[in-house]
Amino acid sequence: MRRSKLVKVTFEPGGTEVMVPAGILISKAAAVAGVGIESPCGGMGTCGKCRVIVNGDVSAPDSSEIRLLGEEALASGYRVACRTHANGETVVTVPDASRSRVQKILSSAAVRDCKLLSGVTKTYCELSAPSLEDETAEFERIAAFLSARDVNLRADLPVVRKISSILRRANYRVTAVTYEDELIALEEGDTTHECLGIAYDLGSTTVVGYLMDLTTGKELAVAAAMNPQMAYGDDLVSRISFATSHDDGLAILQNAAVGALNRIASQLASASGVDLNHVYRVTVVGNTCMTHLLLGIDVASLGQSPYVPAICAEMTVDARSLGLAVAEQARVTVLPNVAGFVGSDLVGVMLSNLWDDDGRTRLAVDIGTNGEMALLHKGHTYVCSAAAGPAFEGAGISCGMRGGPGAIDTVRINQRVEITTIGNRKPIGICGSGLVDAVAQMLDCGLIDESGRLLAPSEAKHLPKDIRDRVIEQDGVVRFVLAHESESGAQKPIALTHTDIRKLQLAKGSIHAAIQTLIRAAGATDHDLDEVMLAGAFGSYIKVESAIRIGLIPPVAAEKVISIGNAAGAGAKLALLCRQEMLLARKLAAKAEHLELAVSPSYQMELMERMMFPSGIAQVIED
Amino acid sequence: MRRSKLVKVTFEPGGTEVMVPAGILISKAAAVAGVGIESPCGGMGTCGKCRVIVNGDVSAPDSSEIRLLGEEALASGYRVACRTHANGETVVTVPDASRSRVQKILSSAAVRDCKLLSGVTKTYCELSAPSLEDETAEFERIAAFLSARDVNLRADLPVVRKISSILRRANYRVTAVTYEDELIALEEGDTTHECLGIAYDLGSTTVVGYLMDLTTGKELAVAAAMNPQMAYGDDLVSRISFATSHDDGLAILQNAAVGALNRIASQLASASGVDLNHVYRVTVVGNTCMTHLLLGIDVASLGQSPYVPAICAEMTVDARSLGLAVAEQARVTVLPNVAGFVGSDLVGVMLSNLWDDDGRTRLAVDIGTNGEMALLHKGHTYVCSAAAGPAFEGAGISCGMRGGPGAIDTVRINQRVEITTIGNRKPIGICGSGLVDAVAQMLDCGLIDESGRLLAPSEAKHLPKDIRDRVIEQDGVVRFVLAHESESGAQKPIALTHTDIRKLQLAKGSIHAAIQTLIRAAGATDHDLDEVMLAGAFGSYIKVESAIRIGLIPPVAAEKVISIGNAAGAGAKLALLCRQEMLLARKLAAKAEHLELAVSPSYQMELMERMMFPSGIAQVIED
Repeated sequence: MRRSKLVKVTFEPGGTEVMVPAGILISKAAAVAGVGIESPCGGMGTCGKCRVIVNGDVSAPDSSEIRLLGEEALASGYRVACRTHANGETVVTVPDASRSRVQKILSSAAVRDCKLLSGVTKTYCELSAPSLEDETAEFERIAAFLSARDVNLRADLPVVRKISSILRRANYRVTAVTYEDELIALEEGDTTHECLGIAYDLGSTTVVGYLMDLTTGKELAVAAAMNPQMAYGDDLVSRISFATSHDDGLAILQNAAVGALNRIASQLASASGVDLNHVYRVTVVGNTCMTHLLLGIDVASLGQSPYVPAICAEMTVDARSLGLAVAEQARVTVLPNVAGFVGSDLVGVMLSNLWDDDGRTRLAVDIGTNGEMALLHKGHTYVCSAAAGPAFEGAGISCGMRGGPGAIDTVRINQRVEITTIGNRKPIGICGSGLVDAVAQMLDCGLIDESGRLLAPSEAKHLPKDIRDRVIEQDGVVRFVLAHESESGAQKPIALTHTDIRKLQLAKGSIHAAIQTLIRAAGATDHDLDEVMLAGAFGSYIKVESAIRIGLIPPVAAEKVISIGNAAGAGAKLALLCRQEMLLARKLAAKAEHLELAVSPSYQMELMERMMFPSGIAQVIED
Repeated sequence: MRRSKLVKVTFEPGGTEVMVPAGILISKAAAVAGVGIESPCGGMGTCGKCRVIVNGDVSAPDSSEIRLLGEEALASGYRVACRTHANGETVVTVPDASRSRVQKILSSAAVRDCKLLSGVTKTYCELSAPSLEDETAEFERIAAFLSARDVNLRADLPVVRKISSILRRANYRVTAVTYEDELIALEEGDTTHECLGIAYDLGSTTVVGYLMDLTTGKELAVAAAMNPQMAYGDDLVSRISFATSHDDGLAILQNAAVGALNRIASQLASASGVDLNHVYRVTVVGNTCMTHLLLGIDVASLGQSPYVPAICAEMTVDARSLGLAVAEQARVTVLPNVAGFVGSDLVGVMLSNLWDDDGRTRLAVDIGTNGEMALLHKGHTYVCSAAAGPAFEGAGISCGMRGGPGAIDTVRINQRVEITTIGNRKPIGICGSGLVDAVAQMLDCGLIDESGRLLAPSEAKHLPKDIRDRVIEQDGVVRFVLAHESESGAQKPIALTHTDIRKLQLAKGSIHAAIQTLIRAAGATDHDLDEVMLAGAFGSYIKVESAIRIGLIPPVAAEKVISIGNAAGAGAKLALLCRQEMLLARKLAAKAEHLELAVSPSYQMELMERMMFPSGIAQVIED
């Protein structure tokens, strides 16, 4: 086991300090610190927009930096954040021009109606002080008051420790906070007006928190942050490896997760003006690895076949033991998992969509780096996960980028190519939904064939002029140009290559093959699908017709496909607001039948087939 | 609030280090460190037997030290431990001659039969390893195995955190330890042979621990230690004051208590050769202040009238959160209190004596610095506490000492005075039971009158020669000599003065008045008493006839009076061995009616009366 050497990186202006592994990229350290730096090229080192002024022990500039910055800027201390490694203590000044604009993190999580039964109750108590005639102990004094309200009060040591001093300071006018009859806080005076909870969706890339009023059920604020664990690995496998190969790896990743939740909590408090000490209940959904790391659970078993979790059952702990900056004895519940790579996030998706056996056949797909999906058919629920790779997040694509300002998000090809970008900015790259749209349109006009091959310029002669002019060969690679150098202001035109299309084929093939494996296991067919729900950022922004055209999902009528937003987060909210929903989540997790694709021969067959694009205009299934 | 300055004192040979408040007596620091130093005079600075070699920042020798040691010894670094204060870092070497011999701590705690239902179960599990065909999560794998044994397993996060690595190291051959269906430990291989618990009696002065086999119910070892909190105050009032007037006072006293329990646990392990990681259950009884301090509960409310506890209910916490050196997730239960000065120790006394309504009228008295007592009459239990002062422990008496080797423990006066000492050693002082015996005999032969006045030499002429020769006047004070200088080798004869007798009168009057108040409150009389139980060290060593003669307890037939040893500790054992006994303890605590003597007019009246000695030979009540 190695001990990881940590170094301090400070970001100015602001002075945010983080301890990160030596050798980390400045851009990653910024993500850990919650400091937004522009990264149009997605950290490929090609755009130079993430320039910062660096002072400290860092790596020497490489050729791309020298090219992007020039000698003079380098001499003034400028560096490219996504190319520069912090080897020792470093101070980074982020110029205003390099500060990132708002990142597009999907945070809308509409919640269906539910009962308000969070389990948290606040009661204002006017108690009589002890006297020689009434020597009832302090705790029992509160218990007697609450028993008139049918609470059979139980004691929680950390609160009991302070009972005497609080009661005396407050002159026996206090607010008792109970969670399921346990006294979890005691506050001076009447604080019954504020009774809060936070529901978190802890993703591998982004973390979202919803501040909820437990009395009214209303959402008071939403906040999001990048998952600072990215400093230790982009994907789950590398984080598991970091956690298991470093002495303090698990603790570092746990602290990073807790830090993200706390940063979000603090944003929620600023946005809404509430007191975080009045947050008494927290729920968390996330994939199995994320929630294990949050709880400090050994993830060794997730790192090797057959990838079993340490635990599937939901866990409830107090906030203090996790280090969450809410009421010390707030109860934090991590929803149950189904399997090693099917976590409570998918349980949240099911929960928020009334995953009831109402006779319909329903498919829910949550696409991120990992695709998790569930199929309900004839009362049975089948779930699985498939590694899609990062193509849907715009990563690994030559001109790809995350869905932020300037990302091409829709493409239309007729006589000419029409694009739109997020924020109507100059195009600087293409995001996942834009990529799907572009490929769908290119298939329709014959620029790409069923096998995924991009036509060579010589084969494109029959196409309209604007289109065929965009098929170019550069450095021996055929490209289809979506935006020219002159329009985009970029160093290179924004174009798709055969390799980009192959990566999308792999990603979409993997997801669709998994869907087909579920359908087959359930004894159903595509025709049975009454509803296809697309969850998560990608599922929300994608054009349904394009998704069907490229064969990402089965060819159902477009009206059967609905975007359900951050349904995992919505599930966390429901479980926060109502204990009955928590019980339902437990049942859903327990009843789900997990298919392990690694041992499914039908998955391998499907994968071969679904890598191809559907022929011609997709045959939409009609009822 | 003050911050207490702590200094390091190291005891050699052995190198035991303790952090103690600056200005502490070396003798107290030794108590904190668990280092036994001879103290025949009880720390009065008169015998000089506690000489040690001191090196460090200590107070200057006072006149008594100079007298006791002489210039030469002082020059060699010798000091008297009970006179020397450590003001800064100090190293103390304890010569062999000054090491204390075994202290007499009452530790026998006979336990009546009870069911063996500790709630702890160990199960050896031979599990199949996960495979692609069986992806059950690690925790659920254990749960499935145990469900066949009717255990509905619940998860405890600290154990879950390590499940994966333990299972893999142990090749899925593990022992699961549950407490009430919760998985509190997971051990490699088959460790079912050792399943242990510790019952503690946490007294203000001494702490006793009983190591119990939870499978057989057998006691494996007993160990005792001084309560190191003595460094911060001899009595409860001064410890409460220390806890509430210093910033870190509560934490210091809590650490001291935890340290004592851990020292005892380590002694128990050495004595029996067991592994403390196999201790899964701990019970603790003690007075309310002691158990509050152990749990780190604010004791402010115990320091001022009306002296109410923060909590009366029993509390269960895990060992790690308290810092107890047993299995991390061992469950530690502190038994319930009745009132501010009637703690779980008295509940333990009742529990161990089958405090059932069997029609008898029963009185239990546990005498220490504080006397706690309970009366059962016609189905009602009345309890109270009375401050007796330290006379019964030999403290505050001119020649008094704790019950250790050389203490006069019985006295018989006929034609001559006959004494015995503990360990048949040369007499060096008198302990509590010796004092009671002496005064009873002196009353019988007329040396003391009913008011407590000691005859002057001129009034003793009619007594036998050996007796009257012992009535002397020295420094203007009348004394009755129990042992002459020549026999004892002490600096002064061992004698009782009028003041000593007064102190005993106050102590015994206080206890007896409390007893009478209980009897009166119950609507009973002395005649109703079917049984009088004397608990604790004093109650065990005292001669019953003498106790009745001086009027410490009501004049019942001697055969109705029984010594019940460390009955509080026996109660802790019962609660450890059987959950039903724990429930019974809860009921006993809840049903007991507490009488607050401070507001009882009858107590004040009784106190006046019971200060006197009974006239003539006590009239023993016959049925």
